[in-house]
Amino acid sequence: MISVTILGTGNLAQHLIRVFKDHPEINLIQVYGRNKTSLKTLPAGLSTTCDINQLSDRSHLYLTAISDDAITTFTANFPLKNKLLVHTSGAQPLNAIKNTARKGVFYPVQTFSKDAAVDFSTVPICVEASNPKDEKMLLTLAKSLSNAAYTIDSLKRKQLHLAAVFANNFTNYCYTLACEICEENDIPFDILLPLIQETAQKTTQTTPLEAQTGPARRNDKKTIAAHLTLLDNQKKEIYERLTRAIQQTYGKKL
Amino acid sequence: MISVTILGTGNLAQHLIRVFKDHPEINLIQVYGRNKTSLKTLPAGLSTTCDINQLSDRSHLYLTAISDDAITTFTANFPLKNKLLVHTSGAQPLNAIKNTARKGVFYPVQTFSKDAAVDFSTVPICVEASNPKDEKMLLTLAKSLSNAAYTIDSLKRKQLHLAAVFANNFTNYCYTLACEICEENDIPFDILLPLIQETAQKTTQTTPLEAQTGPARRNDKKTIAAHLTLLDNQKKEIYERLTRAIQQTYGKKL
Repeated sequence: MISVTILGTGNLAQHLIRVFKDHPEINLIQVYGRNKTSLKTLPAGLSTTCDINQLSDRSHLYLTAISDDAITTFTANFPLKNKLLVHTSGAQPLNAIKNTARKGVFYPVQTFSKDAAVDFSTVPICVEASNPKDEKMLLTLAKSLSNAAYTIDSLKRKQLHLAAVFANNFTNYCYTLACEICEENDIPFDILLPLIQETAQKTTQTTPLEAQTGPARRNDKKTIAAHLTLLDNQKKEIYERLTRAIQQTYGKKL
Repeated sequence: MISVTILGTGNLAQHLIRVFKDHPEINLIQVYGRNKTSLKTLPAGLSTTCDINQLSDRSHLYLTAISDDAITTFTANFPLKNKLLVHTSGAQPLNAIKNTARKGVFYPVQTFSKDAAVDFSTVPICVEASNPKDEKMLLTLAKSLSNAAYTIDSLKRKQLHLAAVFANNFTNYCYTLACEICEENDIPFDILLPLIQETAQKTTQTTPLEAQTGPARRNDKKTIAAHLTLLDNQKKEIYERLTRAIQQTYGKKL
């Protein structure tokens, strides 16, 4: 049984609380929120506090689920000594944690919506710690939630987080541009939703390098030229930049 | 009962043949392929020909599932007169069809893999025709396959196809860039697959404009600067271009 205290009450914190509180191998000791209002949104029956000096010292680990910017200041002022203090950020190194020799990272590689429940068994979790014993405990915790637990150091995690920006943030922005084109032309964006799901689904069956289709991949200059006449400046620049990159990728490989 | 002849034996043709041949409301009269080899990959029990002059004239419509470039030449040489001749392209206008007054479009908005069976009931199909009676028949055909049938003219379809380039081709290329970053750093790309599925899934629940997250959306300059130091020139240019666009989008709206 691993005892855990959660520090934070935001989106990720709430998802972790939901999965920890009923888990047979996890004992959720306490939840800390910075003020009473933040604690109001939590499920009933938890031990909570908004006084950092009232934290129980009985947890095996203290898991911060707070914004990246807050990690260093928050941990620098953490009152308990010699505790395993863990952050949940993809972008921050292990050493963003201050004031303890026992640092850890527990990074779930997923985007969490406010309301929709998450099936953690499918969420990859990447862990790291400053000593092997703590790392083992974090890996055990990760494995008790997920079928995909990994030990990944800070340098690799930084690269993984960067890859996630392309795979999540930039693809989502491409959806936004597609949605704008639909709206400007009075076309229901719904028409594109099955295509979007299928494109994502294909990554589970083949590499995206192999799955690439479209005018840029075929080097279909006529269609590309026709598309460029339809776009405003911003979309045109993005279309041109991505098309050129795809042409180069497959020009090299053909 | 609608009688259909399919002209072509490629990827889309094979998917259409599979769904037409057992459909209670569709009579698949014949399949034309340009040579005997192309016909060999088709299911058994079909009436097929590789002689364009042997086409049955009994079909209500003749559906070309051939490459965009081939539509004009192929239809210009089509031997039957006064038939409804239909193409399946998103990018080509109705008038790409020659040599008949009865032109039509039947455009399934999906990316088709060679082997995986397709559930056509979820594939949006956009139809258009040069006269209302033919358009009604195409819409009936579309509705007999799919729960999402639309009448969309050539100008709108061109815009839709452009939007699909962003929603499918460019997102897939973002997956490729993410995959490259993973491979260069010895990180399993599998770690990103659930994130990719969830990002796509979110479009069915909220607009991509609302769903956007990440350093560009938060205008988190520190993380953006750190990411830029990790990228080669091509990825760096794409990262900068998309980041600037996201910042502008949300700068305007915040």
